[in-house]
Amino acid sequence: MQLGLSVSDSDASPFTPLVVLELAYDTKAEAITWLLNRIRDKQRNGGAELLVDQLMFPAQDGQKPNPNVFVVGSTLQRLLSGAEDVGLCKEFQDGTMRGFTYANRESFKDFEGDGEGFLSDAECQYIVKHELDTLRAKNEVYIPGYPKFKLYPGKSIVRRLQSKGVLVQYFPLHNKEDLKRLSFSWYKKIKLSFQPLDDIRSYFGEGLGLYFGFLEYFTFALIPMALIGIPYYLFDWEDYDKYVLFAVFNLVWSTVFLEVWKRCSATLAYSWGTLGRKKAFEEPRAGFHGPLGLNPVTGREEPLYPSSKRQLRIYLVSVPFVLLCLYLSFFVMMVYFDMEFWAISVYHENPNFATSVLLFVPSIIYAVVIEVMNLLYRYAAEFLTDWENHRLESSFQNHLVLKVLVFNFVNCFASLFYIAFVMQDMVLLRQSLATLLITSQILNQVMEAFLPYWLQRRRNKKVYKRIKRLMGDKELPLLEQIQLETEMNTYLGTFDDYLEQFLLFGYVSLFSCVYPLAAVLVVLNNITEVYSDAFKMCHVFKRPFSEPAANIGVWQLAFETMSIIAVVTNCALIALSPQVKAYFPESDAQLILTVVAIEHVLLAFKFILAFVIPDVPKHIQVKLSKLDFESLEALKKRRRALSRKSWKLRRPEIRGFSEL
Amino acid sequence: MQLGLSVSDSDASPFTPLVVLELAYDTKAEAITWLLNRIRDKQRNGGAELLVDQLMFPAQDGQKPNPNVFVVGSTLQRLLSGAEDVGLCKEFQDGTMRGFTYANRESFKDFEGDGEGFLSDAECQYIVKHELDTLRAKNEVYIPGYPKFKLYPGKSIVRRLQSKGVLVQYFPLHNKEDLKRLSFSWYKKIKLSFQPLDDIRSYFGEGLGLYFGFLEYFTFALIPMALIGIPYYLFDWEDYDKYVLFAVFNLVWSTVFLEVWKRCSATLAYSWGTLGRKKAFEEPRAGFHGPLGLNPVTGREEPLYPSSKRQLRIYLVSVPFVLLCLYLSFFVMMVYFDMEFWAISVYHENPNFATSVLLFVPSIIYAVVIEVMNLLYRYAAEFLTDWENHRLESSFQNHLVLKVLVFNFVNCFASLFYIAFVMQDMVLLRQSLATLLITSQILNQVMEAFLPYWLQRRRNKKVYKRIKRLMGDKELPLLEQIQLETEMNTYLGTFDDYLEQFLLFGYVSLFSCVYPLAAVLVVLNNITEVYSDAFKMCHVFKRPFSEPAANIGVWQLAFETMSIIAVVTNCALIALSPQVKAYFPESDAQLILTVVAIEHVLLAFKFILAFVIPDVPKHIQVKLSKLDFESLEALKKRRRALSRKSWKLRRPEIRGFSEL
Repeated sequence: MQLGLSVSDSDASPFTPLVVLELAYDTKAEAITWLLNRIRDKQRNGGAELLVDQLMFPAQDGQKPNPNVFVVGSTLQRLLSGAEDVGLCKEFQDGTMRGFTYANRESFKDFEGDGEGFLSDAECQYIVKHELDTLRAKNEVYIPGYPKFKLYPGKSIVRRLQSKGVLVQYFPLHNKEDLKRLSFSWYKKIKLSFQPLDDIRSYFGEGLGLYFGFLEYFTFALIPMALIGIPYYLFDWEDYDKYVLFAVFNLVWSTVFLEVWKRCSATLAYSWGTLGRKKAFEEPRAGFHGPLGLNPVTGREEPLYPSSKRQLRIYLVSVPFVLLCLYLSFFVMMVYFDMEFWAISVYHENPNFATSVLLFVPSIIYAVVIEVMNLLYRYAAEFLTDWENHRLESSFQNHLVLKVLVFNFVNCFASLFYIAFVMQDMVLLRQSLATLLITSQILNQVMEAFLPYWLQRRRNKKVYKRIKRLMGDKELPLLEQIQLETEMNTYLGTFDDYLEQFLLFGYVSLFSCVYPLAAVLVVLNNITEVYSDAFKMCHVFKRPFSEPAANIGVWQLAFETMSIIAVVTNCALIALSPQVKAYFPESDAQLILTVVAIEHVLLAFKFILAFVIPDVPKHIQVKLSKLDFESLEALKKRRRALSRKSWKLRRPEIRGFSEL
Repeated sequence: MQLGLSVSDSDASPFTPLVVLELAYDTKAEAITWLLNRIRDKQRNGGAELLVDQLMFPAQDGQKPNPNVFVVGSTLQRLLSGAEDVGLCKEFQDGTMRGFTYANRESFKDFEGDGEGFLSDAECQYIVKHELDTLRAKNEVYIPGYPKFKLYPGKSIVRRLQSKGVLVQYFPLHNKEDLKRLSFSWYKKIKLSFQPLDDIRSYFGEGLGLYFGFLEYFTFALIPMALIGIPYYLFDWEDYDKYVLFAVFNLVWSTVFLEVWKRCSATLAYSWGTLGRKKAFEEPRAGFHGPLGLNPVTGREEPLYPSSKRQLRIYLVSVPFVLLCLYLSFFVMMVYFDMEFWAISVYHENPNFATSVLLFVPSIIYAVVIEVMNLLYRYAAEFLTDWENHRLESSFQNHLVLKVLVFNFVNCFASLFYIAFVMQDMVLLRQSLATLLITSQILNQVMEAFLPYWLQRRRNKKVYKRIKRLMGDKELPLLEQIQLETEMNTYLGTFDDYLEQFLLFGYVSLFSCVYPLAAVLVVLNNITEVYSDAFKMCHVFKRPFSEPAANIGVWQLAFETMSIIAVVTNCALIALSPQVKAYFPESDAQLILTVVAIEHVLLAFKFILAFVIPDVPKHIQVKLSKLDFESLEALKKRRRALSRKSWKLRRPEIRGFSEL
C-alpha cells in the first residue's frame, strides 16, 4: 500500500494499482463492459467490489497497442474484509497467530489507525486475486458477446475467460520501492548473511519464502559434509575405512537434516500464519471439463468427471507411457555406452587426432540427447497430466511433479548406476559424477538466470527507447512500468528450482562414498544459486502471485525417498570396494550378508529417527493447541448460553445447522 | 435408558442407575457428604448436576458390608446437554454425522419426543463418567476430612480421590435385558453369521466395537491364505517354487488387507460418529505428579513435569532396561538350546526311558521360564512407564504398548529366528512353529476365558447363596446385581486381545513359506476366539466404560511393522532353501544378490501400495469435506453479518476472541 502512484487518466478517484488484467486485443466491447461492471459491483449484488481502470498506451510506430489492459485496486476496507474471506492469519496481541476478523481487527498486533500498512503488498494482491477468482456467474448463460462461451450459475468468470483465451494474463505489479529495499538486503550487500526470509515472504508470498528458506537450510546442512569431504580430496585418502565412515555419517546426517527441516519449515509457516490456516475450498482448475452436475461437497453446479475414468487414464495410459519413456532412456544410455566403447576401440586401433576427437563425440551426443529428451518428456508429461483432467490445481501439480521427477531421476542417474553396478568402475564413476555435476551446475546457472536476464535487458531497452521516443520528457513511470512488466516472462513456479536442488542432492548422497567432494561443489553452487535466484525473481520475471504454503509439499517426500535410495546405493558401493572385499577373503556370500544386514539396520534406524523426532516443535504445538482449546471452550460457552436461552424460550423447533 | 429398575430405598425421586461408585470402607463422613453435594450441585455452581444415591447392603455373616457404595444416574435433559459437552456425533437428517447440539436436537435422525432412547446406554454412562471426571475443585485446598489430600482450583476431584485410594472403583452397570439380547445375537445363535458390530458398539462402546470388527476382518482376511495353504499340507508339496509363490502371495496380501482395514475402520468409525469427532482435551492421568504450575495450553493450574526430564528417564533408564531384558531373553534362549543339545547327547549315549523323558525337560523349563519372564516384564514395564510420569493416559498407553510389544515379539519369536537362520534346520523350524502356535492358542483360550469364567461362577454362586440366605424370598434384583458386579474382575482393555492377534499374525506371516498351515490354525482359533471373547465380555468381567476410538491406534502400526519384517524373513528363508540354491550352483553371491533385489522390490511395492490406496473411502471423504465446507460457509456468513453490523454501529472497539 506504500506505492504512491495512481492511475490519473480516469474520472474515478485515484487508487493504488495492485493487479494488471490483460484481455485479448480483439475482445468484444460488451464483454469488457460486463466484466468491469461485475468487478466494480457491490458484494451484495454478487460483484467483487474492487476498483478497476483502463490503461491507455500511446500508439507506437504506427502499431496500435493493446487497448484492453486494466489495473485493479481496492479500498482498504474491502481488502480487510477480503483478508477475512481468504482466512489470513495474523499475529494477535498475545503473540499467537489467529485468523483475522474485521470485528476484532484492533486486537491484532500491527493494526494501527485505519489499518494502513497492516496487510503486506503481496497479501493485498493475493486478496484481489482471490476476489477475482471467486467472482461467479449469476444468471448469465454465456459471456456477453460470445454466445459460445457458456456460463452457469456459480462458475468462476475469470477461469472461463482464461480457458477461452479472452483473458490473456493477469499478474500483480512490482512495488519499485519495496523491490529496491528487498534486493538490497537480499543480494546487493557484499557481506555474507542470512537471507531476509520475512521480507522475501512478505514481497513474494509463503511459497517462495519457503523455497529460499529451504535453499539456505539445505546449503547450511551440506557444510558439515563438505568440511568432512575436503580432506579426502586434499590428502587423496583412498582408505575405504574412512569412506565407509563418511558414507555412514552422510546417511544419518541426511535423515536428521530432512527431519529437522520439517521443524524449521513448521516454525516459518507458523510465524507466517500458514501452518494452522484452514484451507479454503479450491476452485476447479481452468482446464477441468466434464458434464455439468452437482458437486456433492458444495452442492454447487460444476463440471463433474468420474474419478474412476481418471484412474483408468492414469493406470492404463500415463503409467505405461512413463515406463516406456524410462525404457527409452535406458536404451539411449546403452547406445551411448556402445558408442563409447566403439570410439575407444577405434582410437586404440589407430590413435591419431581425428580418432581422439572422436572420443568426445559420444558424450556430446548423449548430453544433447538427454536435454532433448528431458524437454520432450516435459511437454508430454504436461499434456498427459492435463488430459487426466484433474479437478484441482494441486492434484494436477502433484501428478506432474511425480511424472517429471521419476523420469529426471532415471535420465540423470541411470548412466552413473550403470557405471557403478554393472561396469563396477569406480574411477570412471568418480569422473562421470564430477563431469555431470559441474556441467549441470554451469548449464543451470546460465539457462536459468543469465540468459533470461540478457534477453530481458535487450527487450527492456527496446521498450524503454520506444516509450522515451513517444513521450519525450513527460514522466509516465507507471505506464512505463506496466508496459515493461507485461512483456516480462512469467515465473512458472518453484518446480524447476526444487527439481534442481533434488538432483544436486542426488549427486551428493547417492554416491557420496566415492566422491566426497560433491558436497563442496554443491555448497559453492548453492551460494551463487541464492544470488542468481534472487536476481531472477527481482528483475527477470513478472512478479508472481503469492502462494500460501505450509510446507514444501511433495518435495519433502522426494528428498526423503532419495535419502532412502542413497542408503541402498552406498551400501552396495561399499560392498563392491576391494578393500572391504579383502576382509572377507573366503566367501562373497558372507560379505554380501554383512552389508545387507548393515543396510537393513541403517534403514530401520532412519525410520525410527523419523518417528522419534516430532515434526512440529513443542512451543508451536503448545500455541496451536491453545487456540484449539480456546475455540472449544468458546464454543462450549456459546452452546450453553444458547441452550439455556432455548430452554427458557421453550422453542424446541429451532432448526438449522450448528456452526461447527 | 430402557432399564426399568430404580433405587427405592431413598427419599429422592427414583432414577435409573447408570454408574456405581465404591468408596473405601473407612471414608470419613464429611468427605462423603461433600462429594455427594458436589455431584448433586447445579452446573452453574460448578457441580455435576447428577443424581446419586447410597446403597444399603444387608449385613452378612456378622461381617458389615461396605456402606459406601453409591449409584449415579441423571435426568434426560442433563444427559442431552452432557452429550454436547463430550462432543458426541450423531446421524443428522441428511445422513451425515454431526456434533450433537441441544438446540438442534430435533434435526437429528433418531430424536423423537423428549429424546428417550436417543442416547444408547453406553453413551449415557460415558457422559456420566465424563461429567464425574471433569468435576473440578473450586476453592477447596484439601478433601474435607483429609487435610493431607491437597486440592487446587481446577483439579479433577475424582482423579484425586482415585489416586489417594478413597475412591476404590467406579464402573457402569450392565443392562440385563440388553445384555441378553446382545449375547443372543452375538454368540448364542447356532448359525454362523457376522457379528452384530453396531450392537456391540452401542453396548460396549467404539473401542471394543473396533476390536471385534478387526478380529472378524482379520479372520476373513486369513481365509484365502488358509485355503491356499491346505493343499500344501494335504499333498505334501515340498516344491519350493510353490512355496515361493505362496510367500509372495502372503506378503502382497497382508499389505493389501492391512491397507483395506484402514478403510473399513474409517467406515465403521464414521458411522459411529468418532471419525470426525474433535478430541476433547484430556485430563492429566490420575498418577501424574509434579510441582504446580500453569498449563500453557489451558492456562489452568495443574502439575507440570518438564518433558526433557521424561525424555531422560525414557532414554537413559527405560530404553537400556528394555535392551537388557531383550539380552536376557536371548541368553535364556541360548541356555535352552544348550540344555536341548545336552539332553539329546545324553539320550544318544544311553537311550532308555529316563533319558527319553529328559528330552522333554528343556522345552518344559523354557516354556515356563518364558511365561514367568513375560509376567515379570509386564510388571516392570508398567512400573517403568508409570515412573516416566506421562501426563496423558494415551501417551502412557502408547509407551507401555511399545515396551511390551518389543519384548513379547523377541520372547516369542527369538527361538524360531535362531532355528531358521543360525541352525538353518527347516524341519525343526516347522515343528517348533506348529508346537508354539498350537500350545499358545490353547493356553490363551483357557487362561483368557474359561479360567476366569470358572472362578467367576464359583464366586457368583457364593454371593448368590449369601444374598438368598439373608433376604429369604424378597426380590432385590438390583442390589443383587450390583453386589455381583462389584466383585467381578475388571476388564483391563483390549491390550491383551490385540497382543494375542499380533503374535498370531507373526506366526502366520513371518515364516509363512515353511508352514502354510499356520493360517488354517489361526482361522480356526479366531472363530472360537470370537465366541470366547464375546462370552468373557458379557459374563466374566465388569462392564467397561465405552471408549471413543476412531481407529485401532498403535496396533495398526504394529501390524504393518510385522508385515515389513515378514518380507525380510520370508526372502531370507527362500534364499536358504536347497531348491532355490540349486538354481545358482556356481555362486552364493549371485543367489543372495538376486534375493536381496527381490526383497527391495517387494518392500518398495508395499510402500507404493500403502501410498496409492487412500486411507478413507471416497464417499466418507466427501461427507467429511461437506461438513467442513458448510461450517466454513456458515462462518463466512456470520462474519459478514457481524462486520456489517459493526460497520453500521461504528464501534471499532469491539474486542475479544473470535470464535475460531
